Amino acid sequence: MTTQHIPPGWALEFHGHRCPFMPIGYRMGRLAMEHLGVERVKDHGFYVFPELGEGHPMTCMMDGLQIATGATYGKVLMAKTFYGKLAATFYSVHKGAVRFALKPDFIDALGGFEFFAYRRRGIEPSEIPAAVVDEVVQWVYAQPDDALYRVEPKPDFHYSPPQHSFHKLKCSACGEYVYERYVRMKNGQPVCIPCSGYGQ
Amino acid sequence: MTTQHIPPGWALEFHGHRCPFMPIGYRMGRLAMEHLGVERVKDHGFYVFPELGEGHPMTCMMDGLQIATGATYGKVLMAKTFYGKLAATFYSVHKGAVRFALKPDFIDALGGFEFFAYRRRGIEPSEIPAAVVDEVVQWVYAQPDDALYRVEPKPDFHYSPPQHSFHKLKCSACGEYVYERYVRMKNGQPVCIPCSGYGQ
Repeated sequence: MTTQHIPPGWALEFHGHRCPFMPIGYRMGRLAMEHLGVERVKDHGFYVFPELGEGHPMTCMMDGLQIATGATYGKVLMAKTFYGKLAATFYSVHKGAVRFALKPDFIDALGGFEFFAYRRRGIEPSEIPAAVVDEVVQWVYAQPDDALYRVEPKPDFHYSPPQHSFHKLKCSACGEYVYERYVRMKNGQPVCIPCSGYGQ
Repeated sequence: MTTQHIPPGWALEFHGHRCPFMPIGYRMGRLAMEHLGVERVKDHGFYVFPELGEGHPMTCMMDGLQIATGATYGKVLMAKTFYGKLAATFYSVHKGAVRFALKPDFIDALGGFEFFAYRRRGIEPSEIPAAVVDEVVQWVYAQPDDALYRVEPKPDFHYSPPQHSFHKLKCSACGEYVYERYVRMKNGQPVCIPCSGYGQ
């Protein structure tokens, strides 16, 4: 099956440039939602744990995942695992979990496109000729779903979000508000982490 | 000065629900960009470090920050500091840094709106009556910039992003690709972090 799941127009505005990775993440997110039988999350209760890290390519996938699923960083529904892998686990409180991973053969084939030659020379995606970007993006859309993604149900996966509290107090040093779980004590007074000097 | 900086229509689609916090973050992002004299970042080179954490309200501000600045989580341009504070530092490689913090008096006034009474009862933003959401959103728009934000230039702030590498290899246990910095060694073989059992 080939379900292109082309991102909506505003996805490009959000992401900032055209590249193959945001659409790869978007399609992964949409397929994972279909697999679990969930709608885009308006509020909370659906989580995405991308196995990506930092200092490596293809992280743009995560913007596609945010756009597709609604599990945004701002709503604290997305958190990287820092494994440096091209995969993500999707968890619905009601429908359970599934892991999607990019197949090594797909990654190899993708790496052969001219787009990557530009990226390896340090050229930013928005500076790469449109035809070069189009070539790889259109090729990705044309691949069948199972050429891209390995799908692994995760029946034993569980996640408990951190306990939520509205309690906050003012740092005795800088006067700014701090939510309770991040308050530290110093010389008998409540302070924020930066004023504490404790580092965390 | 009152610069409403109302988020574009697609911002609501991205975020998933209407609330006062996404617009507060959006406006903070736009004002910080104006302060530093930068455009929305298409690729890389502009970073946002929100001082928020998890398990507390108002994190939705970070979606507004992503939307306004283009410093998205997927492009690895945004990272929480986990301080539990309602502030963010904005850093441009070329233009330097500035910190914006919500003023305690603004936070106090905001907390008096009926919207928060619903949230404290555990009612999700998309389930709160539209008139209740509108009341607080419109009030926020009407406040002058300096009622919301304390602005603090950070001339000494520096940030070096992690070194970038395209190198990857296959985990000898699961066969999936791992970017080099996340490869671990086990029994003389390269493995990914999950297969290593090391935890990180």
